[in-house]
Amino acid sequence: MEGLAVRGETPSSESPNSPITRNNTFMQTDTPAFWSPPVAKLQPYVPGEQPRIAGLIKLNTNENPYPPSPAVLAAIGEAAATGLERYPDPESLALRQTIATRHGLQPDQVFVGNGSDEVLAHAFSAFFRQPGQALLFPDVTYSFYRVYTQLFDIEAELMPVDEALRIDVDALVERAAKGCAGIVIANPNAPTGIGLPLSDIERLLRACPDRVVLVDEAYVDFGGTSALSLVQQYPNLLVAQTLSKSRSLAGLRVGFACGQAVLIEGLTRVKDSFNSYPIDRLASAGAIAAMEDEAWFDQTRHDVMQARDMLRGQLQDLGFDVLPSEANFVFARHPKHDAAQLAAALRERAVLVRHFKQPRIAQYLRISIGTPTQCDALVTALKAIL
Amino acid sequence: MEGLAVRGETPSSESPNSPITRNNTFMQTDTPAFWSPPVAKLQPYVPGEQPRIAGLIKLNTNENPYPPSPAVLAAIGEAAATGLERYPDPESLALRQTIATRHGLQPDQVFVGNGSDEVLAHAFSAFFRQPGQALLFPDVTYSFYRVYTQLFDIEAELMPVDEALRIDVDALVERAAKGCAGIVIANPNAPTGIGLPLSDIERLLRACPDRVVLVDEAYVDFGGTSALSLVQQYPNLLVAQTLSKSRSLAGLRVGFACGQAVLIEGLTRVKDSFNSYPIDRLASAGAIAAMEDEAWFDQTRHDVMQARDMLRGQLQDLGFDVLPSEANFVFARHPKHDAAQLAAALRERAVLVRHFKQPRIAQYLRISIGTPTQCDALVTALKAIL
Repeated sequence: MEGLAVRGETPSSESPNSPITRNNTFMQTDTPAFWSPPVAKLQPYVPGEQPRIAGLIKLNTNENPYPPSPAVLAAIGEAAATGLERYPDPESLALRQTIATRHGLQPDQVFVGNGSDEVLAHAFSAFFRQPGQALLFPDVTYSFYRVYTQLFDIEAELMPVDEALRIDVDALVERAAKGCAGIVIANPNAPTGIGLPLSDIERLLRACPDRVVLVDEAYVDFGGTSALSLVQQYPNLLVAQTLSKSRSLAGLRVGFACGQAVLIEGLTRVKDSFNSYPIDRLASAGAIAAMEDEAWFDQTRHDVMQARDMLRGQLQDLGFDVLPSEANFVFARHPKHDAAQLAAALRERAVLVRHFKQPRIAQYLRISIGTPTQCDALVTALKAIL
Repeated sequence: MEGLAVRGETPSSESPNSPITRNNTFMQTDTPAFWSPPVAKLQPYVPGEQPRIAGLIKLNTNENPYPPSPAVLAAIGEAAATGLERYPDPESLALRQTIATRHGLQPDQVFVGNGSDEVLAHAFSAFFRQPGQALLFPDVTYSFYRVYTQLFDIEAELMPVDEALRIDVDALVERAAKGCAGIVIANPNAPTGIGLPLSDIERLLRACPDRVVLVDEAYVDFGGTSALSLVQQYPNLLVAQTLSKSRSLAGLRVGFACGQAVLIEGLTRVKDSFNSYPIDRLASAGAIAAMEDEAWFDQTRHDVMQARDMLRGQLQDLGFDVLPSEANFVFARHPKHDAAQLAAALRERAVLVRHFKQPRIAQYLRISIGTPTQCDALVTALKAIL
């Protein structure tokens, strides 16, 4: 998995769901010869700008500013030294065991994939293709959810967040009671960073007992409350997490989902009908090492949280409204400055942040938390601009 | 991608399409609560046995017995040392450029994926979902094709191979002329190892001008003739290859497909609606290094071919009928010995080969080509058994 709501990124001021594909290729209307008819209708997710220019301060894709645990490098070196000519374990048992142990679960309650985006894709396929019923998720959230519903021909019902950009749990509970294909919640949500308490997650689980509630916790390790503690209690709960953010492994592509065994079995059936070996030998070794280094995990995520809280204060001092964030980014708007113009001005000063040209959030900037030095550079640039 | 027709493996004498899932979980009839209705009907591919017992001579999954180029290890070490906390390039441009250069193509004619199985899956989705038309492929071939048709709800029409287990090109041409969703051919075919000349591939391309002909060349580097030379000429040709076999990188999960830009664009739309970053930083670095070491590639594949030709003679001396193979395996039967019993007897002597409990080929063994020492051990064991 990547970021949330924009885990990956588009260049500033582009809609993440633009029908324009990368590489200056066509804006599609008809189906070109050879394509399956549904392919022309897809509006693919546009992953974020990964600039090839050196020296930019990159606060636009919610990556961790710190490298992974040194144990990761050692484990990868060891795994690369022998056996690359052999297939990896198709069941990724060692990695699933490690994740299960970390979270007090059994290996058959853990599914792993090539980033949590792949895990989410398989989950949409495995659980939400319920003819005649709509999948419910907030209108402001990770934009890949909408793409998956197109890919798998799932009806989507976008539930408006409130004026403060908070998920309207009451409305979701009321709507779910009428029947739905399931619910997807990012917690903390993206790109807002706002978290829900477990009591709200439980209300959703109880409102939708016959369908899966997927809680996407890509950012939960930066101060949110994980629903993993509810897995044994709710058979309809599936929790997705990633090693891309809090474990500093965006470059390695490992995500996972936890739920009761029947849900994991459903995911596994879909995965084994698609690609038997999604986790390569190096990704498995690196991910296991990262999961086992709790000290590194705690140090780096606390450094990020500390820098976030400091940055929030500095932005408020500059006049920004800053949403409360439980993630490794903040979502902020300035009452007197246009967000797109601010993003462009920051870019001129070699600082990349994320701006979404999207209804309701077009006046916000999403700023990933960097090192203290990177955050200082951002603040200095903003002072010059404002 | 993995093996062909069994690129991955099941324990000897299990059908690769058995409805019994791994882990002793259920034999599914009804849809368990929460699953999308189609999920219960899937008959997932069962990847091959990757035994955790040491000391076995593993000739059952068509892996390369030689390690990858030493340059691969160096490139992985360098890539792991910095930047794992950052997302990889979602477009995998450097890798696509390397593959394009190697094959005289442009980067927009190359698509890469997490093993060629993922590439094949996206190709089935992108091109073969043609309502009311059937996808044509041989009845004896890589068994994952059948699984993909189930996953994507594609009608499949299996075209019988002839008595010598050769693909019946005449019948395919005749059938394709009546309209179809496309054609899939493994060349060389699996698990037979028999190759088709390019003239036959061209007959298929001309018989099916409005649909994609997918030529899966997982094993082509061991003596087959690649259709990559036809890409510029035929807009309906898509050629898939893998780094798992001839580049000794089964453990790294990299495959690719080449075709004209409009086909690659279709694949990219599907991929970007599924997972933006399937190729991690280490896989990209290792794959580029492997593609660039032509000397290693030529040395190891020629060693494999030489061992194959020697083993074929030795097996014939023992009374086996051995199909002509252009792959890194041979497909052989003994007129006086039951194949399942032979496989079991070999296993008792710590030699794993592959047996398919499947119509038409149930009396054959598929034997991957190992080092000369491993091949000798197989022959010694067979002499003792026979």
